[in-house]
Amino acid sequence: MKAAKWYGRNDVRIEEVSEDYVLKPNQVRLKVFFAGICGTDLHEYNSGPISIPVKKPHPLTNVKAPVILGHEMSGKVVEVGDLVTRVKAGDRVAVCPIIGCQTCYLCKAGLMGLCEKVAFLGLSWEGGAFSSYVTVYDYMCYKLPQNVSYEAGALVEPLSATVRAIKQGRLKSGETVVIIGAGPIGLMAIQSSIILGAKKVIVVEKFENRRKIAIKMGASIAIDPAHKNLNELISELTDGAVADLVIECAGRNDSGLLATKLARTKGRVVIMGVFEKPELIDFTDIVYGEKTVIGSMGGYGEYDNTIKMIAAGNFNINLMITGKISLEEIIEKGFLELIEHKKENIKILISLF
Amino acid sequence: MKAAKWYGRNDVRIEEVSEDYVLKPNQVRLKVFFAGICGTDLHEYNSGPISIPVKKPHPLTNVKAPVILGHEMSGKVVEVGDLVTRVKAGDRVAVCPIIGCQTCYLCKAGLMGLCEKVAFLGLSWEGGAFSSYVTVYDYMCYKLPQNVSYEAGALVEPLSATVRAIKQGRLKSGETVVIIGAGPIGLMAIQSSIILGAKKVIVVEKFENRRKIAIKMGASIAIDPAHKNLNELISELTDGAVADLVIECAGRNDSGLLATKLARTKGRVVIMGVFEKPELIDFTDIVYGEKTVIGSMGGYGEYDNTIKMIAAGNFNINLMITGKISLEEIIEKGFLELIEHKKENIKILISLF
Repeated sequence: MKAAKWYGRNDVRIEEVSEDYVLKPNQVRLKVFFAGICGTDLHEYNSGPISIPVKKPHPLTNVKAPVILGHEMSGKVVEVGDLVTRVKAGDRVAVCPIIGCQTCYLCKAGLMGLCEKVAFLGLSWEGGAFSSYVTVYDYMCYKLPQNVSYEAGALVEPLSATVRAIKQGRLKSGETVVIIGAGPIGLMAIQSSIILGAKKVIVVEKFENRRKIAIKMGASIAIDPAHKNLNELISELTDGAVADLVIECAGRNDSGLLATKLARTKGRVVIMGVFEKPELIDFTDIVYGEKTVIGSMGGYGEYDNTIKMIAAGNFNINLMITGKISLEEIIEKGFLELIEHKKENIKILISLF
Repeated sequence: MKAAKWYGRNDVRIEEVSEDYVLKPNQVRLKVFFAGICGTDLHEYNSGPISIPVKKPHPLTNVKAPVILGHEMSGKVVEVGDLVTRVKAGDRVAVCPIIGCQTCYLCKAGLMGLCEKVAFLGLSWEGGAFSSYVTVYDYMCYKLPQNVSYEAGALVEPLSATVRAIKQGRLKSGETVVIIGAGPIGLMAIQSSIILGAKKVIVVEKFENRRKIAIKMGASIAIDPAHKNLNELISELTDGAVADLVIECAGRNDSGLLATKLARTKGRVVIMGVFEKPELIDFTDIVYGEKTVIGSMGGYGEYDNTIKMIAAGNFNINLMITGKISLEEIIEKGFLELIEHKKENIKILISLF
């Protein structure tokens, strides 16, 4: 079978890999249907290695580069190990890419996504989603109801990350949410915020095209961060309430500083963006306003909820999927398209069935 | 009567002020007994004006400089306005220095300390605690039980700020607390942490003298921040748990960065320090560890609790009071002593009775 393998920066190769496999008793063999391209894949492609082990094998999985990429996926179970009861052959599933050690206090506390030895499908695992078949642990599989398409199933991973972030931010019904950055995660966070009870969602995004998509996704208004009196404008738009909750999805320079500035007194700021280096924050503003800044990492713990929300028809999935391409097209029409023309896409899926 | 009046930077004068007063129906006249010198007073003295209104009168109180300083105090009620039921003449009280507008959503939500128009006794009010008598609103008075001395009463304000901070940080019984900075607030936070359930308190402080006082106050260990492998050392000292809760009480340069670094995965960091300008924070560390950074402003809401804790004998009050001086000595033996020899003092009280 064909798979997209990461060998190094700017060196991802579509090549033939063996279809042979050995299932451990708690593992599941999957036929991949759709796999989404994530910002993480783009980072590994053009400035990696970041999370891919290169010099030493990964301490938990013993894997190192080259690795098959891809960690946002849906598929069908083709075989299960002897001890697996969670799914059976024929089940349609979404996959959580997180592999925990299962023994540390974080894994035991239901926080496997924060395990200090955490490994990921498509980054530090023996297989990835940009491939016709993949082997995963049983606990990584989440069954999809019949009315959730395989396309939607491939969005469960990023959508659940936005659901987790909003829950970390303790959104209360009727509150105003400000989202900074309308990339794929920011755009998905618009819909998650509304579904979870936000009365109004305001987006701050510098690209006009993305601001337009943000409105389509349900934002009340989308503003250029270069606007002179951003605070005053947002205050006006919210009858003086400013933001109860700010979701930072940009991860660049002053976006953290802006996020806390836009939060009201006693407001919460959730950081989802990945920052390349430490950036400034106004601690005095945080003290005087008793503001809270919370980090949110991935969607672990919110897969079942997210699937239920998709099944209930809450998300506009069609709007989020802006391209379906073949594995052979992954670099030209996938990675490079997203890197160079990133204003026009939300999520590009690879069809693998 | 004599009072210490702030006229400008490095210009605090002990001068005769009128003893005349008019009580509003919801006001209380107090004879001041003890008033503590706070870091805020020192900042106003040597780099103010910071919170003292100089050009325009304060929007809520209509007060501007010169103002009588002093906001940490105990005293005895000498007269009450017609509508006052909270206290009566003869009552011994501690005073909360916060004056709110009483009409905004924050005041109504019990968050008067965060009122956007907030004014303070001794900074933006017609009177201050460095004076024989002062007039305050009834809601600012908290009765002291007989077994709480006037000296201890003057510590209620800073102690309650540490209690509020630790509660904001959601300390759970048996957790490990790291306190950064062993100035008066950091030192008081040691005892508050222990009283509120911390199993172990670790202090990070650069001055050796203060590290010694920290141990006397109950810290398990006090470490120089210049120590090479601070994280590893703290991890060792806590059997790998690192800090569940970090209380930042230093407010300088990289202390915010250090605070988040020392917090464990899912740990909380409470900022109490006053930073002069925005400083660096590692957002990626916050995201990957799902850490929470919370600002805590003053002690509003924790006065009754703090007084109960003092009455129960939980705090070592005698250790905290390192000097009692007269009003006439406030500059030489108060402000300058604390500014120049700040390693050796915790709290200096002015005796005013």
